[in-house]
Amino acid sequence: MITNGHFADRLLDACADKNSRLVVGLDPHAALLPEHLIENARQDDDCDPRSYMARAALRFNQEIIAAVAEHAVAVKPQLALYEQWGTAGWQVYEATVETALEHGLLVIADAKRNDIGSSAEGYAEAFLGSCSEDAERRAGETDAITVNPYFGTDGITPFLQRWKRGKGVFALVRTSNPSADQIQELSVNGAPLYTHIGRLVEEWGASYCGSSGYSALGAVVGATQPEAIRILRQIMPHSIFLLPGLGAQGASADDVVEAFDNRGMGAVVNSSRGILFAYKDAGDPRAFATAARQAALRVKQSINEALRRA
Amino acid sequence: MITNGHFADRLLDACADKNSRLVVGLDPHAALLPEHLIENARQDDDCDPRSYMARAALRFNQEIIAAVAEHAVAVKPQLALYEQWGTAGWQVYEATVETALEHGLLVIADAKRNDIGSSAEGYAEAFLGSCSEDAERRAGETDAITVNPYFGTDGITPFLQRWKRGKGVFALVRTSNPSADQIQELSVNGAPLYTHIGRLVEEWGASYCGSSGYSALGAVVGATQPEAIRILRQIMPHSIFLLPGLGAQGASADDVVEAFDNRGMGAVVNSSRGILFAYKDAGDPRAFATAARQAALRVKQSINEALRRA
Repeated sequence: MITNGHFADRLLDACADKNSRLVVGLDPHAALLPEHLIENARQDDDCDPRSYMARAALRFNQEIIAAVAEHAVAVKPQLALYEQWGTAGWQVYEATVETALEHGLLVIADAKRNDIGSSAEGYAEAFLGSCSEDAERRAGETDAITVNPYFGTDGITPFLQRWKRGKGVFALVRTSNPSADQIQELSVNGAPLYTHIGRLVEEWGASYCGSSGYSALGAVVGATQPEAIRILRQIMPHSIFLLPGLGAQGASADDVVEAFDNRGMGAVVNSSRGILFAYKDAGDPRAFATAARQAALRVKQSINEALRRA
Repeated sequence: MITNGHFADRLLDACADKNSRLVVGLDPHAALLPEHLIENARQDDDCDPRSYMARAALRFNQEIIAAVAEHAVAVKPQLALYEQWGTAGWQVYEATVETALEHGLLVIADAKRNDIGSSAEGYAEAFLGSCSEDAERRAGETDAITVNPYFGTDGITPFLQRWKRGKGVFALVRTSNPSADQIQELSVNGAPLYTHIGRLVEEWGASYCGSSGYSALGAVVGATQPEAIRILRQIMPHSIFLLPGLGAQGASADDVVEAFDNRGMGAVVNSSRGILFAYKDAGDPRAFATAARQAALRVKQSINEALRRA
């Protein structure tokens, strides 16, 4: 019995309902937050920049979430940008998760955690909640988490065990950054390392498929790597791809079409700065939420149009 | 100009001063905390188990730190076991770091973070503080952090840039867990993947050596892997090894001797449960700190004796 519905089914149902494959990355870069939010937050308490910046970020996230909820299927808070403010940042992370869930969005904690045994179990508790099927949801508990697979199954199983509570896991397979090739492209029996890891992830997830045919264990594949996307889609037919790197990192909607199956499903695309900070181009910092809504609509549509063209 | 002394020099000076190569892992497993600490913490506030368990963990850590400070060179809080309690756990992590620094211990955040660009920068800020050389120390700021190298240099540089403020980084190379071989032993040009990663880490760290000859970028190598330790020590002459897995994970002091140079330096050995929960064997939960002090002394001596035998 699956408590809240299988994660892959829930994610793909949201994609179908909203006709959207968009995930909005909630990365509240301190240097990019609208000045008026920082000013307002600072008036309450001038002494600690970590605490007023964190408050400004929460206000920002809350308005962004309300603005993009109609066009996105999920949000993806990047934990680093909360932890930079210590405990105050962690509080904002938890409050951000609550706001997103209230708006009917799925939440993917972009935490890239990786450890073994009781430590992996601790991270799983933190982000995916208790293993017990009838346990109450906790503050900060999300629908899915990103993980690093370097430990092998020992580092994946504690997270994946929560699949019956409707939880999902995305393992890093091929990342979007320039130096990724130093390790991920190393040749193992004539094929790049990332393809071997992709095969393992597919294999580890095979027993955890929902009625959509997709597994609770998906893969992070950089949107900047269309060749890797094509190769991995062949190797990993049951894995949902989470594709970061659209926009600010240089990938376009046409780069990601091979990630999708012939129904236009099986993948979601993350955009962060291009949506959050669209107000920079629009010119009015006070209208940041409106600019984000319009950018989310544009990105959603550009992916759908690229899929129609493909 | 290096603000607080080079990290490798500071760590190895502490090893020489205390004649110890011991790091105590601060992993406050909920199920293993002494019952009286939980009872005392619960009396203050009965409603939220995350908050009273976190308070019990802080009290536990504070007494453990005072007890082992004489025998250990550093402590290594495992972030997972703090995050399991959400914001309350993060507060305990920050308070634990303060206590350890007050006792003259170095602190290695076992966070295994990994990301790129501004996200890696956010994690570096969180754990190693500002990049600016004259910035004040922040809550939760430690001396070093563990990182996962799967992103290549993009995921290492933001941390390593803090070396001038006396900060260190330990990259995962060969981990101690059973399933590590699924990925780390994959054959790249006839040699295991972990040896290639070891070579890269050595190369990335080569420009960041202190007067000890060791780099601010070290390596995590499982104490359960004596063969990997031997091979990696050849490949990585300038990298300090952080060796987890002694005791509870099955490694003995004799398994780690090849990690050290001919002066008995260049590596530190982590023990967590064998020290923290030594009171379970000693029989009196109220004397947990005394049992930990005795266990720390025993482990410190067993490593030193193994080095003399080697």
